[in-house]
Amino acid sequence: MTEATRISTTISPEGSLEVLSQQEVNRLRDTSSNGMHDVLRRCALAILNYGTMADDSCSVLETYHDFDIEVIQQDRGIRLKLTNAPAHAFVDGSMIRGIRELLSSVLRDVVYVSNEIEKHGRFDLESAEGITNAVFHILRNAGVMKPSRDPNLVVCWGGHSITREEYDYSKSVGYHLGLRDLDICTGCGPGAMKGPMKGANVAHAKQRRRNSRYLGISEPGIIAAESPNPIVNELVIMPDIEKRLEAFIRVGHGIIIFPGGVGTAEEILYLLGVLLHPNNADIPFPIIFTGPAGSADYFRRIDNFIAFTLGAEAQKYYRIMIDDPVGVARAMREGIEEVTAFRRQHQDAFYFNWRLDIPRDFQQPFTPNHDSMAGLALHRRQNVHDLAANLRRAFSGIVAGNVKEQGVRAIERHGPFRLNAESELMQPLDELLTSFVAQGRMKLPGSEYVPCYTLNT
Amino acid sequence: MTEATRISTTISPEGSLEVLSQQEVNRLRDTSSNGMHDVLRRCALAILNYGTMADDSCSVLETYHDFDIEVIQQDRGIRLKLTNAPAHAFVDGSMIRGIRELLSSVLRDVVYVSNEIEKHGRFDLESAEGITNAVFHILRNAGVMKPSRDPNLVVCWGGHSITREEYDYSKSVGYHLGLRDLDICTGCGPGAMKGPMKGANVAHAKQRRRNSRYLGISEPGIIAAESPNPIVNELVIMPDIEKRLEAFIRVGHGIIIFPGGVGTAEEILYLLGVLLHPNNADIPFPIIFTGPAGSADYFRRIDNFIAFTLGAEAQKYYRIMIDDPVGVARAMREGIEEVTAFRRQHQDAFYFNWRLDIPRDFQQPFTPNHDSMAGLALHRRQNVHDLAANLRRAFSGIVAGNVKEQGVRAIERHGPFRLNAESELMQPLDELLTSFVAQGRMKLPGSEYVPCYTLNT
Amino acid sequence: MTEATRISTTISPEGSLEVLSQQEVNRLRDTSSNGMHDVLRRCALAILNYGTMADDSCSVLETYHDFDIEVIQQDRGIRLKLTNAPAHAFVDGSMIRGIRELLSSVLRDVVYVSNEIEKHGRFDLESAEGITNAVFHILRNAGVMKPSRDPNLVVCWGGHSITREEYDYSKSVGYHLGLRDLDICTGCGPGAMKGPMKGANVAHAKQRRRNSRYLGISEPGIIAAESPNPIVNELVIMPDIEKRLEAFIRVGHGIIIFPGGVGTAEEILYLLGVLLHPNNADIPFPIIFTGPAGSADYFRRIDNFIAFTLGAEAQKYYRIMIDDPVGVARAMREGIEEVTAFRRQHQDAFYFNWRLDIPRDFQQPFTPNHDSMAGLALHRRQNVHDLAANLRRAFSGIVAGNVKEQGVRAIERHGPFRLNAESELMQPLDELLTSFVAQGRMKLPGSEYVPCYTLNT
Amino acid sequence: MTEATRISTTISPEGSLEVLSQQEVNRLRDTSSNGMHDVLRRCALAILNYGTMADDSCSVLETYHDFDIEVIQQDRGIRLKLTNAPAHAFVDGSMIRGIRELLSSVLRDVVYVSNEIEKHGRFDLESAEGITNAVFHILRNAGVMKPSRDPNLVVCWGGHSITREEYDYSKSVGYHLGLRDLDICTGCGPGAMKGPMKGANVAHAKQRRRNSRYLGISEPGIIAAESPNPIVNELVIMPDIEKRLEAFIRVGHGIIIFPGGVGTAEEILYLLGVLLHPNNADIPFPIIFTGPAGSADYFRRIDNFIAFTLGAEAQKYYRIMIDDPVGVARAMREGIEEVTAFRRQHQDAFYFNWRLDIPRDFQQPFTPNHDSMAGLALHRRQNVHDLAANLRRAFSGIVAGNVKEQGVRAIERHGPFRLNAESELMQPLDELLTSFVAQGRMKLPGSEYVPCYTLNT
Repeated sequence: MTEATRISTTISPEGSLEVLSQQEVNRLRDTSSNGMHDVLRRCALAILNYGTMADDSCSVLETYHDFDIEVIQQDRGIRLKLTNAPAHAFVDGSMIRGIRELLSSVLRDVVYVSNEIEKHGRFDLESAEGITNAVFHILRNAGVMKPSRDPNLVVCWGGHSITREEYDYSKSVGYHLGLRDLDICTGCGPGAMKGPMKGANVAHAKQRRRNSRYLGISEPGIIAAESPNPIVNELVIMPDIEKRLEAFIRVGHGIIIFPGGVGTAEEILYLLGVLLHPNNADIPFPIIFTGPAGSADYFRRIDNFIAFTLGAEAQKYYRIMIDDPVGVARAMREGIEEVTAFRRQHQDAFYFNWRLDIPRDFQQPFTPNHDSMAGLALHRRQNVHDLAANLRRAFSGIVAGNVKEQGVRAIERHGPFRLNAESELMQPLDELLTSFVAQGRMKLPGSEYVPCYTLNT
Repeated sequence: MTEATRISTTISPEGSLEVLSQQEVNRLRDTSSNGMHDVLRRCALAILNYGTMADDSCSVLETYHDFDIEVIQQDRGIRLKLTNAPAHAFVDGSMIRGIRELLSSVLRDVVYVSNEIEKHGRFDLESAEGITNAVFHILRNAGVMKPSRDPNLVVCWGGHSITREEYDYSKSVGYHLGLRDLDICTGCGPGAMKGPMKGANVAHAKQRRRNSRYLGISEPGIIAAESPNPIVNELVIMPDIEKRLEAFIRVGHGIIIFPGGVGTAEEILYLLGVLLHPNNADIPFPIIFTGPAGSADYFRRIDNFIAFTLGAEAQKYYRIMIDDPVGVARAMREGIEEVTAFRRQHQDAFYFNWRLDIPRDFQQPFTPNHDSMAGLALHRRQNVHDLAANLRRAFSGIVAGNVKEQGVRAIERHGPFRLNAESELMQPLDELLTSFVAQGRMKLPGSEYVPCYTLNT
Repeated sequence: MTEATRISTTISPEGSLEVLSQQEVNRLRDTSSNGMHDVLRRCALAILNYGTMADDSCSVLETYHDFDIEVIQQDRGIRLKLTNAPAHAFVDGSMIRGIRELLSSVLRDVVYVSNEIEKHGRFDLESAEGITNAVFHILRNAGVMKPSRDPNLVVCWGGHSITREEYDYSKSVGYHLGLRDLDICTGCGPGAMKGPMKGANVAHAKQRRRNSRYLGISEPGIIAAESPNPIVNELVIMPDIEKRLEAFIRVGHGIIIFPGGVGTAEEILYLLGVLLHPNNADIPFPIIFTGPAGSADYFRRIDNFIAFTLGAEAQKYYRIMIDDPVGVARAMREGIEEVTAFRRQHQDAFYFNWRLDIPRDFQQPFTPNHDSMAGLALHRRQNVHDLAANLRRAFSGIVAGNVKEQGVRAIERHGPFRLNAESELMQPLDELLTSFVAQGRMKLPGSEYVPCYTLNT
Repeated sequence: MTEATRISTTISPEGSLEVLSQQEVNRLRDTSSNGMHDVLRRCALAILNYGTMADDSCSVLETYHDFDIEVIQQDRGIRLKLTNAPAHAFVDGSMIRGIRELLSSVLRDVVYVSNEIEKHGRFDLESAEGITNAVFHILRNAGVMKPSRDPNLVVCWGGHSITREEYDYSKSVGYHLGLRDLDICTGCGPGAMKGPMKGANVAHAKQRRRNSRYLGISEPGIIAAESPNPIVNELVIMPDIEKRLEAFIRVGHGIIIFPGGVGTAEEILYLLGVLLHPNNADIPFPIIFTGPAGSADYFRRIDNFIAFTLGAEAQKYYRIMIDDPVGVARAMREGIEEVTAFRRQHQDAFYFNWRLDIPRDFQQPFTPNHDSMAGLALHRRQNVHDLAANLRRAFSGIVAGNVKEQGVRAIERHGPFRLNAESELMQPLDELLTSFVAQGRMKLPGSEYVPCYTLNT
């Protein structure tokens, strides 16, 4: 018997957004004018296609070029009509419930961002306060903020293309976090984003913990390459990469960084850049870099690069702990106790770190293209957090060139991005990127990596 | 020992709105510029003061002139600081939890209406569609629409000042509705708005029914006179009386009308006026007028008045059932089955009656004052639904003159409203109003009613 | 349309006992040999017939002489087949769920008592420890003991035939207990056994308290006259009146006594008799006698009778609080805090008062008949707790003669019981009983009371 | 820092048995006279020691020779005092909650079996009906029977010592069963008893299935070697191996057999022996033998052995499906639909297969020792189900000799068991056992297997 690889069916959304106004339903249907349909289709496909390893958005979209999703109003709410959906999202004809929930989340966020953020212009996206407010409202609308919970959300960052040893290690860390009543937030996708959730899930079962949270925060450009595993039981699609990064550090109470590639480097630079800002001095925020014994070298390189570019001050913000899942879990638990005490003392909310000051530079969406990449100021004759911001952009552009649809297409058409760095910076930067290539962190295994950038002095 | 009559304390909101942005908190604090604080204070006081019989808003506000409420941001969300709150909302120093929940609902709606409806102007309140959309969004934000539930929400209308016999009867009807798995929605307050909920609550306990709904829909002008009993476990504050009426008929699946005064007459005329609109033909909507044996005369009068003003066609929309709680409950259950079948057949939502066409005339807020009241076209040389709309406004104005702060103040200053009606209409209208006075339906017992209107031919 | 007064149907048990072995099913079916069927039928009828005022078991059994109940094994467990059941237990053909649950409880207890207590003889019912152990096991099997709960169970005793004022007062006390997070336990039935539960139910709704407990403890002889209102959500049928009394004082954390008749007097004497036992000194147990202003005289008489028979020492165990529901509720709350502290200090269980020493005399079932009643030692030349035990038996016999099937039949056949008391005791006893008759506490209103006893000196 | 390997502490039981009578507590404390303490200690240790691979009970007991467990009565119920418990059952000083629950289950069953089955002699353990009744009562007391659930419990049997490929395969089968809403029951322990639960747990998370069941059925002799992983969320300790086998086939709705050793062979023979009994014809019971491609040979051998010993008739009861997890899950789902239809049609209970006739021979506890093993009638001149019963005993004895404390000690003292078989049977039996040894199925890896038996013709 050959199994069908496509299924067409109609499903009910589950969990988040079941009640839409007729206006909203009409707007969802209206595919041409405002482009929501395309975003919806792209994100829906990523969710239905979880578990299939695929490194760039294009290939998924090509494989399922005939996939479509449509919103229908019905007696008990709305329904989603799917055409030619990947069969592995279904079990004997019924969609896996977790996937239905994630689909609903996508619908919810796409509608909200389009209506409230983009269309009505009620948030002043030119001001830092306005952007933060938009981030807050998207998260609130998604039900992510739980006022009754004590701080316990650990953000895990790291590569989607990691070794088996690293993956198992990330699972083990997740397991020991889970035993300690901690919830997990990642960017979705495979590798270091999946391991901690799987580990925590087992631990939560052993602790008989109900209502555990496996929060995924994604964005339309990355979701195809990092589609959420259905263990993710809360999903938010932020409108762009900068708001996604802001969401991570506003809702997370601590951050663990596993080995990864440029994406992870981007995240690290974002995080340190923000924390180095003078306004953020004295805000406790536990950060741990960790991996198995075999990853010690990776973190040494990262640590050196940080020391070189951002200085010793930046190194104070994180601890490097190698091959010690129990120790990492305990240190994180303790770090979060401090966060809790601090928030209590300052009467800050537990669910959103309002106090953190995120400079405009880190919030402003960066659109990587050959011009913007070439124009980045990559030298040390500037503030450390400005340099961090620019390095972050450089890495962000490389991620786009590697896996995002627009970036990949641009590279195909015009060749690699050219980055201009001061000569002293050139070598460490080159070494770091080369080591990512050498360690296979740029692409999923099985394909040879062709760099999407060149470095000029 | 004499008990304190005032308590000052700080409480956590409960249930609905625990997560506010700093902007929203600031806006709540900002009492002078946008007037939200006054609405919040007024509604909060009504909730804290439930159970105290008081007929007009003024007296409550005067008694508790030193009451205040303030919003504070704190570690686990926001807190409400209350000063000189009525002591009977507390038990040994702790606020009754149901009251805390209702306070939170008030806060939620006041914030939402101010931010989303009034300030941002995102709904076109000049169009019927825009108003309906606003109603929908307020209700959705309040969590009132439950897509997983089958239609079962019975709206109960009737007077706040009714006889003991009528009150007990309304309780009995509520009991038999509750036994049949029906939920109750009223306008809050005492009398016919409380009886059905109390009866249903007992029946639901006997049926071991969890998650029963006792939905109150109020508005800032009336809430002081009709404060919600804490059995109400869902409360929505609509911004004005017309949106409140629209909310009732969009979310309710059937309506039962108990004896009442002008307010009830207003509701009946609104309801029939809408249903008589040609676009609404064939939409099933069970309506039952009911009371104990002693109220038969009351309904005969109403029935005659409807026959005289709106014609025999209008009489087809309702059934009068006297002294038959079980029969009423069964008829309502059956009527709602038809509504369910109809919605299923037309793939209409269960939770919001989109199909109903509410003419602009019924949606447009009517501000009763001496001019607008005098200018009402009270004659039969117009469409029945136009006449219904104008009669509705006349009754609405009398309610305002009886119990609402602004209306009462206007009457104090300028004397009674003058209504101009055609001569044929004058007599039945006069008789109806006089009978309300005679039956004590205009005011709570213990005070003599001084009419706030005069009728001119 | 005339409604059917009888319904024959098959229902599923709900809540407690859904899984029976084939042996147990067979035993339930076996009606003749072991008499379980008769007990089951009698108790089931009482539950189905709740709300109908009827003072003696005989009349209920006569009215529904053709009622039957049968146990059937079916795919998802067992089913109960009912023939000619009272129609008011059903709503449009479906049994009220609370009643189904109570029926299941009856089945559960009848099976358990028959199998574990009576048949297997595993408890030594000749020893105090054995009887207490049996009481414990019946209660545990019924799921009554909740180890996770703090002490909060208030036992309310009082008459089933009380005035409207007294009933409303008991409701008000229940309301204020309920506001303070206290649960209610009574003997089921109308009057003072129902009022506190109804009041607490409203308060619990206002406090949004889920999992509230309305525990009824009955026994086969009394249940027909005191059938449980379906607000009762936990029901235990103890095998006899002495085990029922023991259950009350082992699971309750405090006791409130409302006005009542001989039954209440029986309970008071039992309670004081036990507490007066030297072994029970220093065990905290809050006891409050309370009623509306109109009942002050009633409690004065009881108080005098206690002083006369048991002495001033006995009076220290209770407080009399007239017309003060809030005060009663607060005093009970405080008393229970002391109980909690005591149990914690002594590492005693919260859910069962093991420490209380109940003398054999109070545990031994007393079968009232003309001989045993005539033989009671009613004089003060004995220990106070022995006198209490005998007075308790005397009152118990009068209850039986008033409302229990066997007692009523015996009186019909042989005339009133004769009690022999010492002359000093005769007068106060006579006065007390006469006052019960005069105040209408012996029978439900509408029938004239013919005493089932005479007093001899 | 070196971590402690032992922890002494006091914990609260969780979940099942929190309310004990003083008699029961006393009996639990009483360690010498009735031996309950030893069973409790042994089972408790097994649970605390889960996850540590250890093949025989002796070594665990030796390692933790100073471990002790004691029951204490306390305010909110009972507490368990642990001395020198294995540290890995704790996280930062607190016991993992799942382990606490399993400990409580052990306590519950040890108390129940001792009191109800052994001490009171209320079940006639000499009759088939009496034994089945005892099995039913133990399971009911453990809360295993859920009358509201449709049949969905899949029993998974197989070895505790299997290859990684086999383990991963069993996980995959569990995953696909879990996706199809099926629950898992195994004998606890590692290998094929753990894989299906882990797989199902992931699938249940994806399906957002709450209240999933991971039921472990063990017995005191085996639990040390097959300690329950804390994913097991329901655990029953049956008193002996025969009642454990009966429990499996009475509560399971279908059985999947993964590769295993003699224990698995014992289970297969028990199962087929029962089903081959003429009284059990026509009772649907889906049975699937499955494994990865590499295990095909294993099942071929088993299949041949069955054909040789029990005949072609026996082969009709099972399907062999190699390397097809999805197919196995679907076939099981379909088989269980048939079971459901059959039970409905015959009004049989879903939760307990009363209809199955288990011959006395299969229920009678078999105590393996040198005499009883030597005396087994291993020839084909008897009924097939009699031969099955005897072969089952032979395998059971070998399991005891391999891993159970008593068996291991007996072998140490007296050398291997001697089995006497007819010559035709000798060869296939020898081949089968030898293949188990060769495939490493007799012992956990890392130790060489010394046979505990010899075969005589």
